[in-house]
Amino acid sequence: MSTHDIPAYMAQLGQAARAAATAMARAGTRAKNDTLLALARLLREQTQALQADNARDIAAAEAAGLAAPMVDRLRLTPKVLATVAEGCEQLAAMPDPIGEITGVKRRPTGISVGQMRVPLGVFGMIYESRPNVTIEAASLAIKSGNACILRGGSEAIHSNLALWKLVQQALTEAGLPATAVQLVETTDRAAVGHLIAMPEFVDVIIPRGGKGLIERISAEAKVPVIKHLDGNCHTYVDAEVDIAQALVVTDNAKTQKYSPCNATESLLVHEKSAATFLPQIGAIFAAKGVEMRCDPAARAILSDVPGAKLAEASEEDWATEYLAPIISVKVVASLDEAIDHINRYGSHHTDAILTTNHPNAMRFLREVDSASVMVNASTRFADGFEYGLGAEIGISTDKFHARGPVGLEGLTSMKWIVLGQGETRA
Amino acid sequence: MSTHDIPAYMAQLGQAARAAATAMARAGTRAKNDTLLALARLLREQTQALQADNARDIAAAEAAGLAAPMVDRLRLTPKVLATVAEGCEQLAAMPDPIGEITGVKRRPTGISVGQMRVPLGVFGMIYESRPNVTIEAASLAIKSGNACILRGGSEAIHSNLALWKLVQQALTEAGLPATAVQLVETTDRAAVGHLIAMPEFVDVIIPRGGKGLIERISAEAKVPVIKHLDGNCHTYVDAEVDIAQALVVTDNAKTQKYSPCNATESLLVHEKSAATFLPQIGAIFAAKGVEMRCDPAARAILSDVPGAKLAEASEEDWATEYLAPIISVKVVASLDEAIDHINRYGSHHTDAILTTNHPNAMRFLREVDSASVMVNASTRFADGFEYGLGAEIGISTDKFHARGPVGLEGLTSMKWIVLGQGETRA
Repeated sequence: MSTHDIPAYMAQLGQAARAAATAMARAGTRAKNDTLLALARLLREQTQALQADNARDIAAAEAAGLAAPMVDRLRLTPKVLATVAEGCEQLAAMPDPIGEITGVKRRPTGISVGQMRVPLGVFGMIYESRPNVTIEAASLAIKSGNACILRGGSEAIHSNLALWKLVQQALTEAGLPATAVQLVETTDRAAVGHLIAMPEFVDVIIPRGGKGLIERISAEAKVPVIKHLDGNCHTYVDAEVDIAQALVVTDNAKTQKYSPCNATESLLVHEKSAATFLPQIGAIFAAKGVEMRCDPAARAILSDVPGAKLAEASEEDWATEYLAPIISVKVVASLDEAIDHINRYGSHHTDAILTTNHPNAMRFLREVDSASVMVNASTRFADGFEYGLGAEIGISTDKFHARGPVGLEGLTSMKWIVLGQGETRA
Repeated sequence: MSTHDIPAYMAQLGQAARAAATAMARAGTRAKNDTLLALARLLREQTQALQADNARDIAAAEAAGLAAPMVDRLRLTPKVLATVAEGCEQLAAMPDPIGEITGVKRRPTGISVGQMRVPLGVFGMIYESRPNVTIEAASLAIKSGNACILRGGSEAIHSNLALWKLVQQALTEAGLPATAVQLVETTDRAAVGHLIAMPEFVDVIIPRGGKGLIERISAEAKVPVIKHLDGNCHTYVDAEVDIAQALVVTDNAKTQKYSPCNATESLLVHEKSAATFLPQIGAIFAAKGVEMRCDPAARAILSDVPGAKLAEASEEDWATEYLAPIISVKVVASLDEAIDHINRYGSHHTDAILTTNHPNAMRFLREVDSASVMVNASTRFADGFEYGLGAEIGISTDKFHARGPVGLEGLTSMKWIVLGQGETRA
């Protein structure tokens, strides 16, 4: 297809996707699983060839002076390829979400009413750098019976094109339409503007990238967006708590990895636990070079910790996702204050309470208005694989449709089915 | 509150709703049910007073020369008030959707992961004329633990204000915030523009009215819209069919009432059944004065029916929701042709197959891309009450979030809960 005329090109992709979506919705479980297994095989067979294509992107990125971590995210190492191939095999082994019929109940009129799970139709995926997302998105589309249009980062275009060819080959081998997964072949940024504004062809947009990109797409999209903004996650240490356990969990939630959206960015400690808990977690953070931005009460307690990097927290700190070795720390007088603080400053992503008090655990679960709420566990668990979804196309910070980690079910909808024997309405 | 400065007034409503939503999310089942029962009692006690307020709207409507059916839709007769009071009592008797915990499963890491149903937060409802919608929306908000802002038609303003006062009284009696249900007290149309563009205060908009209103709101809203566009519903009579039953069901689907969105607007008949079925249904339609807009094959068969009002169907007819004694009629060569026709021209609302063939019934259920798909039942059954949802805030023609009749569950979201014993991520 010619990519010269962007509006015409995008409309062509859209039309082809809409037609493919009908075929994919009808596709049998075996054909979808065969595609995934063929794709896994091809990824393993073609590892060397894929690395050659990937090398072109790496060379261009290095020539353009991209920072080393950015270049690393581009790399299709044999390990990365083995992981995505395994992901395809795991998806093939999962139950087919499509066609599930639930809740069929007889009504007094004689009809039976229930629901059937069906694909959403066509999704558009907009992502940056990491080319393995191409396979993750394609494999989720295939298993969930949707068609998709993928728009990856321009710096990964050669890698994405090479991966996409394997996806098309796998679809064709299994007798499914190659157009079920399409890649935008141009790096022209105008293509994104069209992709998010074709409600006749695209049912939902899933962006993955920085907050700025996602806000821009959400503001301009003419279709629903499954969006993930920021993860300002909290760990709250209650008045009654197993201190030794709380130290291990809080440490893990903050320091196991600094960059993920589910890492804890703010620590709230009940005043009854503060004198015992804060100096010990402070020492752990000090040893790992984690800066603590504190309210006055926390700072007073932490000031005795040798080597602690302390600062005063500003109003802005309470609302900040650092993605870095920095944490905000506040002493609270009650569970209520903790819940209010989290609902006010948090990003409704993931928040945890560490407590031995059952009523407090239950109130936290009910009243914290976040996609994931946890008791006595590290916020780092908020993840589609950890939740058993098999795979994750993203994490939603919205309440509408999908919330939290989005797996196969987030790409489906439930339609109503009515089974009658000639009933009429009175 | 002063309604003079519309932006400030709407922001005040929004702030109050957001605060009330937190209280409503925490409200106990008993307080919510007590509110609904108090409201039912007040509606019965105040029937006479309500009719006096209603009379002001009726008089103004008649003075303004509104058509008689429009005036009728305004009327709060004792029967209408008894019905909404009963609706409140039925809602009180239903299980509380909030707090439901489902699917908790242990993961290999030791954490248990499940989901908890919670309110969406604040919804805005925009509706025309019928004042009983004020009570329907308020009662659904109360039971589902949401706050709401209601904007009714200007021609029903006195009725709506009177009904709303009873809602506030019931909330106060049960110890819940009166601001959980707010009514926009001005008829200034600028208020709608603000209501649909306050994502900080309003989580979702539910419009009820004509297609034009809903398209305008959807285009301009800055929050998700649960929208109901048109209902171009089909009844398809298959090759293998119980003709006597098909006649009764098709007649009911079209003529039981012409105005509802779930009435059948288009009849598809397999060519093998056409010669038997069409003359008989044609005679029934002729007797009721239903005009038939036909393709050539159907017209040829129907031309012998005495008194039949026949016309040639245009391309536009296949996509038209008549809401009138008119039906489009087409003979198809196969189930495939029927499904393709429905998916192409239908509005994805409700479509039915009448058949005795099991594989055809199952294919129709799977492949027709509509909110409700039916076998051997009248399309008129597509309704929240008929489906057992207890009440209906609207019917969604979207696939995202809620699809088809929207009851209490459509006003909720599922958040993830994680129950641990000090687990950390490796």
